[in-house]
Amino acid sequence: MTLFEKHQARFEQAQQACATRHCWSPYPEMPDKYPEAAHAKSAGLAAFEQHLKNGRFELDQPGITNWIGEEISPYTQQALGVVYPQSDINTLFDAAEKAMDSWAQAPYTQRIGVLMEVLEVLYRDHLFEVLHAVMHTAGQSYNMAYAGSGVNALDRSIEALVYSEQAMRSVAPSAHWSRRFGSSEIHLQKTYRLVPRGTAVCFSCASFPTWNAWPSMMASLATGNPVILKPHPATVLPMAITVKAFRQVLQAAGFDPNLVTLAIDTTSEPIGKVLIKHPKTAIVDFTGSVRFGQWVEQNAHPALAFTETAGCNTVVLESAQDLDAALRNLATTMCLFSAQMCTSPQNIYIPQSGVNTPTGTVPFHEVAQRLATAVQALTSDPKKASMILATIQSPQTLALLQELQAQGQQRGQVLLSPQPYTHPEFPDARTSTPLMLQVSTRERDLYAEERFGPISFVIACEDAQDALKQATQDARSQGGLTAFLYSTREDFIAQAEAAYARAGAQLTINLVGAMPLNFAAAYSDYHVTGLNPAGNATLTNLAFVAGRFGIVQSRRPVTPESGSTP
Amino acid sequence: MTLFEKHQARFEQAQQACATRHCWSPYPEMPDKYPEAAHAKSAGLAAFEQHLKNGRFELDQPGITNWIGEEISPYTQQALGVVYPQSDINTLFDAAEKAMDSWAQAPYTQRIGVLMEVLEVLYRDHLFEVLHAVMHTAGQSYNMAYAGSGVNALDRSIEALVYSEQAMRSVAPSAHWSRRFGSSEIHLQKTYRLVPRGTAVCFSCASFPTWNAWPSMMASLATGNPVILKPHPATVLPMAITVKAFRQVLQAAGFDPNLVTLAIDTTSEPIGKVLIKHPKTAIVDFTGSVRFGQWVEQNAHPALAFTETAGCNTVVLESAQDLDAALRNLATTMCLFSAQMCTSPQNIYIPQSGVNTPTGTVPFHEVAQRLATAVQALTSDPKKASMILATIQSPQTLALLQELQAQGQQRGQVLLSPQPYTHPEFPDARTSTPLMLQVSTRERDLYAEERFGPISFVIACEDAQDALKQATQDARSQGGLTAFLYSTREDFIAQAEAAYARAGAQLTINLVGAMPLNFAAAYSDYHVTGLNPAGNATLTNLAFVAGRFGIVQSRRPVTPESGSTP
Repeated sequence: MTLFEKHQARFEQAQQACATRHCWSPYPEMPDKYPEAAHAKSAGLAAFEQHLKNGRFELDQPGITNWIGEEISPYTQQALGVVYPQSDINTLFDAAEKAMDSWAQAPYTQRIGVLMEVLEVLYRDHLFEVLHAVMHTAGQSYNMAYAGSGVNALDRSIEALVYSEQAMRSVAPSAHWSRRFGSSEIHLQKTYRLVPRGTAVCFSCASFPTWNAWPSMMASLATGNPVILKPHPATVLPMAITVKAFRQVLQAAGFDPNLVTLAIDTTSEPIGKVLIKHPKTAIVDFTGSVRFGQWVEQNAHPALAFTETAGCNTVVLESAQDLDAALRNLATTMCLFSAQMCTSPQNIYIPQSGVNTPTGTVPFHEVAQRLATAVQALTSDPKKASMILATIQSPQTLALLQELQAQGQQRGQVLLSPQPYTHPEFPDARTSTPLMLQVSTRERDLYAEERFGPISFVIACEDAQDALKQATQDARSQGGLTAFLYSTREDFIAQAEAAYARAGAQLTINLVGAMPLNFAAAYSDYHVTGLNPAGNATLTNLAFVAGRFGIVQSRRPVTPESGSTP
Repeated sequence: MTLFEKHQARFEQAQQACATRHCWSPYPEMPDKYPEAAHAKSAGLAAFEQHLKNGRFELDQPGITNWIGEEISPYTQQALGVVYPQSDINTLFDAAEKAMDSWAQAPYTQRIGVLMEVLEVLYRDHLFEVLHAVMHTAGQSYNMAYAGSGVNALDRSIEALVYSEQAMRSVAPSAHWSRRFGSSEIHLQKTYRLVPRGTAVCFSCASFPTWNAWPSMMASLATGNPVILKPHPATVLPMAITVKAFRQVLQAAGFDPNLVTLAIDTTSEPIGKVLIKHPKTAIVDFTGSVRFGQWVEQNAHPALAFTETAGCNTVVLESAQDLDAALRNLATTMCLFSAQMCTSPQNIYIPQSGVNTPTGTVPFHEVAQRLATAVQALTSDPKKASMILATIQSPQTLALLQELQAQGQQRGQVLLSPQPYTHPEFPDARTSTPLMLQVSTRERDLYAEERFGPISFVIACEDAQDALKQATQDARSQGGLTAFLYSTREDFIAQAEAAYARAGAQLTINLVGAMPLNFAAAYSDYHVTGLNPAGNATLTNLAFVAGRFGIVQSRRPVTPESGSTP
């Protein structure tokens, strides 16, 4: 049985889910539902701790010149103490190019079979190991690291394989073509090869390393391209585990493991631009800061660039059937992983006249205050806070919180001041409750850019129309992935749907209850639209995969009878 | 009956042809087979002549500030004397944006129906009019203008619609999604909108205006985007006819005609860069010079850019079953439209030891001489020459011929000197027979770039391996769309197929007989691969269309029973 046959049933279910976009996942959604969960959890923790004990992450890749590592756990604020091999960059590109040929020549179903096996191995052997690695680098909570950086990232990876297969299947492998020219008939046998574009460089980010990188790697590899993975220096371990797993499965399947290698750097000596401008770079997948993302988009040519940076995600709160329920949901989403998600809301636009409810209009100031109270309620109990806020990945985020608090005190009104909370398990964890500022639209310079971390602005607008206009303008000019609307007016909802569609942000309307507002379901919810500055790495559609390979034909005469060359 | 239903049977046949890539076209391949050909031909000529008589090409588009035109017929070397409206650029973008909304909101099958109707109108009412307009601007022959700029361009347009439809159909319009979160079940109704990227600027080129522009316009419009067409100032008339036809059909179908407008300029005051850097430009389709194409690729961001520039198309002549037949085919293709096609061969690599044939090895110098003789045989009779060479589109090409002839005399060996031939119908036509130079690989600076026009180099290589290496290096470094190989050795053929696949050039092997070597069949032959510097406007695959729209969802809770919002 081939690897493709082994995974075919699951792959076909995924194809079906992508077509209908109903709810599906082959993975248990909570850690406790994982098979033999207790054993898996302790084995994963042990594997993580073994990395710390080893100190040196062994990776059998070529051109190693140095061993480096500078990760600091947001949970302990201590160095992880793990060093990773740094390879000569040209050696990595040469090795990737050498590895590409036999991989590219394999039928694409064979490649997809091998990649489904990689996902199986990540799930079966490394899920809880990755979970702890993500916790102690990105700073996510246990449950988020399991879901958002584990099974959901695996689901998004299968999706990337589904769309890769769809794009490649759309090309017939060969054709017999005949046509009359004047008095003679020409018969040609045509062969259409799928040719990979070349080596892909995949940048993973500090706060969500696997979620974007795994699907990007899948898209490049499925279409025949090798991948050099460049993790953020703060979050290397999950990606080193990833690279090692890919290499082992590739090798076991008879392919050159140098199809996937690790290129690491330090904050003081970054190699990102060198990788992007390398003459052998054919594809760039970038997740990270807006500033570097814009540089990537402008400088990647002739490489194809897929970016996911960030933007200002917006909320328009016009009216609500149940205002408290809406505010609870908003508060939860504003707190989730301390708003260090590309889908976290930042700018909350409310008419200055207030929010209409069945029991009357609630004044703007009261809505702002009740939202702040809802956030406070979620974060005042450290145990609850630890599950929802988790930690602050970077000290820079704490500095930004301080800076904006000071500005807010001068120019607006501080609804909620940030303060550290004591994590019940990790007393030295880097933590902060959210900062909330109440501002008018005159403070645009404060909020009209991404303020990464648990920072939000409650903005008084002229009226509902103005709120919608301001919010969609943020998405258009600054980028935006998600948007949230509460309104009981169907005409306003329809107007907002059209406005956000033009602004290219995924809109969630009137959602209350147990689901986090920014929860994105694999196989069902789309991600980056490519229609605003937040990036073009759509992840889950044909545009994300179709340019990663070319179609090169060869054609030659055949005799019509035998079909063989004359 | 809707327009989609009217054209559905043909569209489905095209889908079938694209899937199997067999020979198909709904159009007669020769002018004489056109329905009521005699009448159509004279009506087309009359329509063309009426444009010259009118002097002013009326086009009811907004913002007209000026009337300009500087076209000169390569057949008469006289000014056409037609002026076209020049509109204020901002007015065109504003009008396009205004027109987009209702077009984008129409179901995509409706858009495709309207666009199939445009093609029907171009075919039924304007084919021979466009034919004469192409002849007297681009300088093509009558038959090529019919086929290459007429029906084949229509075929390629239908293909663009087929792939657009495939990419859009891949997105489900809506879904009902439900999942348990803790103890509660969340039910969401999700709507997935296809949102156009925004206004596309389409540049058409001087020598083949319709062939690239029509499919590009189709791809943009099918996916919901308006198009501003920017023709080369030397070749406006065919595109003005095009724009007028689009506008009439769009308006008749109830849409805003400003979905398609014309933006013209002059050689002395070009507007290309202004259009590309315009903040409202979302897509650029560019066909033209390598130099400007590279500028487009580097500067179009944040617009999506599709380019077809050019490159060095190569020939490797290693051995041949019938050398004379091979040389005849090569000669024909080198002469076709005076090699002013993006698929014309330029660099012919031959082992210095000669070419193996069943009757022995033919020395290099003899092969070169026999190829020159074959070219001469095709071009010595003016009537024959007029059908195959047609005219030289630009005086710059004549200047380049002179310059390279002078260099060839100093540094290589002139196999064939260019000279004007007298066109039997148009005695003042701008014409030239081809220049052929025999060089060694030391003259790389002469031939390692595109030399536009009837210019070719016969290059002595060390051996067959060297010939293949040099040829594929040209494609990789300079770009290349097509490549041609003659070899009787299956091992060498396999090696060449792999090498050209990596270099991203479409390879034709051992073709002799009535079909021109660089004939590209719609629905069967692929075009630009995107794998070398010749561009990325593949025209006939998903990568050409999938990025022209985004997917924006909205989701809201529904009650599970009624499916309506709670």
